[in-house]
Amino acid sequence: MMSQKLRVTVWGENVHERQNPLAAKIYPDGMHHTIADAISEDGDCNVRTATLQDPEHGLTTTVLENTDVLVWWGHAAHGQVADAVVERVLARVWQGMGFIALHSSHYSKPFMRLMGTSCSITWREAGEKERLWVCNPAHPIARGIDRYFEIENVEMYGEPFAVPTPDEIIFISWFEGGEVFRSGCIWKRGNGKIFYFRPGHEAYPIYYNKDVRLVLRNAVRWAASDGTKWIDRCPQISARDAPEPLEIKGPKIHKEDEAGFR
Amino acid sequence: MMSQKLRVTVWGENVHERQNPLAAKIYPDGMHHTIADAISEDGDCNVRTATLQDPEHGLTTTVLENTDVLVWWGHAAHGQVADAVVERVLARVWQGMGFIALHSSHYSKPFMRLMGTSCSITWREAGEKERLWVCNPAHPIARGIDRYFEIENVEMYGEPFAVPTPDEIIFISWFEGGEVFRSGCIWKRGNGKIFYFRPGHEAYPIYYNKDVRLVLRNAVRWAASDGTKWIDRCPQISARDAPEPLEIKGPKIHKEDEAGFR
Amino acid sequence: MMSQKLRVTVWGENVHERQNPLAAKIYPDGMHHTIADAISEDGDCNVRTATLQDPEHGLTTTVLENTDVLVWWGHAAHGQVADAVVERVLARVWQGMGFIALHSSHYSKPFMRLMGTSCSITWREAGEKERLWVCNPAHPIARGIDRYFEIENVEMYGEPFAVPTPDEIIFISWFEGGEVFRSGCIWKRGNGKIFYFRPGHEAYPIYYNKDVRLVLRNAVRWAASDGTKWIDRCPQISARDAPEPLEIKGPKIHKEDEAGFR
Amino acid sequence: MMSQKLRVTVWGENVHERQNPLAAKIYPDGMHHTIADAISEDGDCNVRTATLQDPEHGLTTTVLENTDVLVWWGHAAHGQVADAVVERVLARVWQGMGFIALHSSHYSKPFMRLMGTSCSITWREAGEKERLWVCNPAHPIARGIDRYFEIENVEMYGEPFAVPTPDEIIFISWFEGGEVFRSGCIWKRGNGKIFYFRPGHEAYPIYYNKDVRLVLRNAVRWAASDGTKWIDRCPQISARDAPEPLEIKGPKIHKEDEAGFR
Repeated sequence: MMSQKLRVTVWGENVHERQNPLAAKIYPDGMHHTIADAISEDGDCNVRTATLQDPEHGLTTTVLENTDVLVWWGHAAHGQVADAVVERVLARVWQGMGFIALHSSHYSKPFMRLMGTSCSITWREAGEKERLWVCNPAHPIARGIDRYFEIENVEMYGEPFAVPTPDEIIFISWFEGGEVFRSGCIWKRGNGKIFYFRPGHEAYPIYYNKDVRLVLRNAVRWAASDGTKWIDRCPQISARDAPEPLEIKGPKIHKEDEAGFR
Repeated sequence: MMSQKLRVTVWGENVHERQNPLAAKIYPDGMHHTIADAISEDGDCNVRTATLQDPEHGLTTTVLENTDVLVWWGHAAHGQVADAVVERVLARVWQGMGFIALHSSHYSKPFMRLMGTSCSITWREAGEKERLWVCNPAHPIARGIDRYFEIENVEMYGEPFAVPTPDEIIFISWFEGGEVFRSGCIWKRGNGKIFYFRPGHEAYPIYYNKDVRLVLRNAVRWAASDGTKWIDRCPQISARDAPEPLEIKGPKIHKEDEAGFR
Repeated sequence: MMSQKLRVTVWGENVHERQNPLAAKIYPDGMHHTIADAISEDGDCNVRTATLQDPEHGLTTTVLENTDVLVWWGHAAHGQVADAVVERVLARVWQGMGFIALHSSHYSKPFMRLMGTSCSITWREAGEKERLWVCNPAHPIARGIDRYFEIENVEMYGEPFAVPTPDEIIFISWFEGGEVFRSGCIWKRGNGKIFYFRPGHEAYPIYYNKDVRLVLRNAVRWAASDGTKWIDRCPQISARDAPEPLEIKGPKIHKEDEAGFR
Repeated sequence: MMSQKLRVTVWGENVHERQNPLAAKIYPDGMHHTIADAISEDGDCNVRTATLQDPEHGLTTTVLENTDVLVWWGHAAHGQVADAVVERVLARVWQGMGFIALHSSHYSKPFMRLMGTSCSITWREAGEKERLWVCNPAHPIARGIDRYFEIENVEMYGEPFAVPTPDEIIFISWFEGGEVFRSGCIWKRGNGKIFYFRPGHEAYPIYYNKDVRLVLRNAVRWAASDGTKWIDRCPQISARDAPEPLEIKGPKIHKEDEAGFR
């Protein structure tokens, strides 16, 4: 059914990797390149990267129109992402572009705007163990994962995770220190599929973990849409074009065929 | 269980009523006053109004903290609503304030931000008949309504209505000209209950319709929350305070007890 | 708003307590009485009990018509519950009766019928510690609970919990042995509110735990409906009664005013 | 990605076509064959049929295990479908088999069991016009359909349609006589995708309509799963196999490795 390769754009904030020696050592080319490499292991994907520092953050209209799935990693500089770019991302998601928000991107502008909630969590940095349980073993995002997988040292995120009820929960995490978290959740906004995936951190080599990389590849395939129609216009339907014959009876504030407010 | 009266704030854009003679004739005191009157017929409600023209649009922190349900009507001046006020409204919704968006408020900033979608529709002004069908006859918002109710002359809104799947659909409209629309929908964001209700227009006396007024009163009661806790903070949990005893094993980027990014 | 007391019926299978000395020692009057006592601490509730051994399992049409919330505990004898009683329970839930399924009742006939899924879990009996985290601190079911509460010794239930996506998750459990579980979930079927609550077991004194008892009381208040209309009929609407004037054009298989198939 | 053809089974009750001359004239080979022909126009599908009159209603374990999507049409003989076959169908849906319920199958045993509600509607036979509006123009089930499509003469179904809130609504119908109906709805149960599609009737040639046939083909492709794991077992996890080392502390009712209750 899919005759062409999936076009994936991995967006990295690329701040920690340039300012923090530890992050730079783990991810010398930036986390976005490590994530892109993981996805590129799926030969059906064409993967490019973009960063905060690129003109228009690397997310021009052309790039977005040629992106089937956008993967997002941000943390220290959410506020520096231009609102115009955020609006552009949202519009493409509504059209059908998949959107995968990683780790601290729960607080990124595009994710928060898609959720409509505070997206708050609790957190702790203690290098503790995380175990991610599969909630639906037959879901395509969990393909190839057994009952659970583990990451030896992580930053902890705990409930409450202030998001709208997910359409489905794919993973719930158990943490050594005693917390739990909905670590893999999906939603749909317009025609766009959204996946939030918790693992990741600038100070741990989490995007080299083979299970994390497998989930990233699964998620990209799942999030890709084959839809092509926009659904964000607001057209006026004139009385002449009503499905049923119609005389104009009441007062009219707007002229026939006048454009809507947006 | 509710020992005090519900505190309702009706927000009106109040532009058409001052600029358009037809709207001014139908709603000489502004639509917000007519809507407030409808809700005040429920003796358990204390209703106040606020408008775009008031300082801080009448939605100061104090007003919002003392509002259980906020009713919103906007159309011509969505863009003039200050973003700081929008953020304030969102935060209160997440805490538990009910939010009722009326008619053209599908394109208001607070509603669009809560939905995370384009909220687009189709529309036509021909004074046609609308019939609103009850989808769950036992829902409290539909109390007192039989199988359907009618409004003789309305502006039409048609599908697709680009919103996230509602938690429940209370009303679906049939239009004389041949369209349909999900006219009464509910969602939850954080602890806040949200109701979108389609009827209303500046050029028709719709907020004098007895069934519309009954639904407004039902909706206010439904949307009121008894919750009181904030859920939009993002606290760090120190290793000392972990539910299970925990040694810090990995590198730490943030200091213990350092505040989060927000 | 509620002028009368809530009418609660606690249904107990009452098998372990009569056959297993350990269960009999912990719950000498049967678990249903301990649960009923917990709910009765809310002075606004009138609580009665019913058991598998009663005629019609104690769930006659009269009892159900006078029940606002039905609490269900079953484990060893799910198959002995008469299908006619199950149908009766479902019909009342659709009308608006709240339904609270406890612990092993995930496999009870009424709960499985309301879910439409296999409702399977994983499990282990090792007396391990359970910590239940609040996912929405402002939800009425979690009122009075801080960030989490603990139960010292429990049977473990683990994911995957094969239920339809809950409308909201109130609690997620962390287990000492390394598993997680969606322990407090809500759904709506027709006009009936449903709460699944994991804690409980015949071999542990869990229904004496003060936090478990508080959640039971909160849940009963939450699950009570004020709706009164049935929504399970399937009426024929004759052409004479169509909202819009209508001539019968096509062939008619069924006679006007003939009753539907159910 | 799909290397093999989709295996589709169309199940027909096949009662009206043998007893009612009008239905027999429209569908001389039975409605199931007309529906199967529509789907077979998609060359990627291998379509077979099964009927109530076949041994085990044609839905043996072997047939179901080799079915990716099951299409169901029933009306007059819902009660004659053996419960054992219904259970078998449910188990396959939970595993990932798609299920498409057509028209009067809203009252079929498998659909009602998957929904957990009364599934009631209102109805009228007057040969009136139906117009089905697309609620998400980018959804794969609506591919190739413009803003709406029409069927000239139909039996009407009206709200309330007593089903759980759909995951998404694809079509809402407008009827000439004044009603509306959620005519195309999707849900997920376990790993199985479910689509309810209203059009169809034994006394109208609706399954020859080109748009109806297009939607049937779209829906079959959408409903097909690539999942392969069962999620309906209930395994005991012994303390020896706990992810975290665990001593058995409390009393044990069940022996280690004893099978669960189901």
